[in-house]
Amino acid sequence: MVGDEHSDPSLMRYLGATKRNMLGNHFWEYYVDDAPRIVLDKLERYGYRVVSMTGVGQTLVWCLHKE
Amino acid sequence: MVGDEHSDPSLMRYLGATKRNMLGNHFWEYYVDDAPRIVLDKLERYGYRVVSMTGVGQTLVWCLHKE
Amino acid sequence: MVGDEHSDPSLMRYLGATKRNMLGNHFWEYYVDDAPRIVLDKLERYGYRVVSMTGVGQTLVWCLHKE
Amino acid sequence: MVGDEHSDPSLMRYLGATKRNMLGNHFWEYYVDDAPRIVLDKLERYGYRVVSMTGVGQTLVWCLHKE
Amino acid sequence: MVGDEHSDPSLMRYLGATKRNMLGNHFWEYYVDDAPRIVLDKLERYGYRVVSMTGVGQTLVWCLHKE
Repeated sequence: MVGDEHSDPSLMRYLGATKRNMLGNHFWEYYVDDAPRIVLDKLERYGYRVVSMTGVGQTLVWCLHKE
Repeated sequence: MVGDEHSDPSLMRYLGATKRNMLGNHFWEYYVDDAPRIVLDKLERYGYRVVSMTGVGQTLVWCLHKE
Repeated sequence: MVGDEHSDPSLMRYLGATKRNMLGNHFWEYYVDDAPRIVLDKLERYGYRVVSMTGVGQTLVWCLHKE
Repeated sequence: MVGDEHSDPSLMRYLGATKRNMLGNHFWEYYVDDAPRIVLDKLERYGYRVVSMTGVGQTLVWCLHKE
Repeated sequence: MVGDEHSDPSLMRYLGATKRNMLGNHFWEYYVDDAPRIVLDKLERYGYRVVSMTGVGQTLVWCLHKE
């Protein structure tokens, strides 16, 4: 999952993300099939830097900052 | 959740936060409906920088520092 | 919880911490009633900077460094 | 686990990683027997720096950045 | 726990660590009785700096880097 309905559409396009609505959710989200490393490398070229990473349950979450 | 009863009221106003008392809690808290990204972007413009992020249970927590 | 029996007494005094022995524990600890934000702000004025924050179970833990 | 099928083969070779397919997984992965400290030391010599570390379940995960 | 059988013996000696084999484990480890703060302070004097801290289960883990 790389974005929600308020995410920057041009950034989502750059990541090749697809918009979807998970059954039962009342919101849309963007996802990619790429591994996190691929996404983070792309985001780095877009000016984002990883600030922190954490796990919630079995999910990894990255917090990035655009410089 | 973005603040407690000792939080800076002007910062809470800036975030558009609402004060509430969750049933059964003996304290007040401030919350916003915005996604974390929106709140963190606002806080950055106020001089706050993310130091660390972590998960407790199913909740994400950010630790920020005002420069 | 802000300290153990080997913590610097003057730092504990500065934080307004109280020494206590939790029932069943064979050690003493220092605690404060202040919210973490208050304690971290005080520690910053004492030269401490947050390096990392994490959750263990339902508890948040901060790791600070004195510069 | 140090890599997936899209990982840089020369980096995997440098780490002495072995490619394997865990029973039931439809993907390949690279692993090493070395302790994390050994792998991180090797990666540092290759220009990688640890940005963050977290736990998911009983597993430790490191996030590195190539400078 | 501060080290494994491949840890630098002089660093382990400096920390006052004891080598032990936990029943059922096929490996040796080094441990100290000191609180983490004491160990981290010693390691800082040896040139190590905390990069990240995380919790796995009920255990806290620190990731340090020698500058």
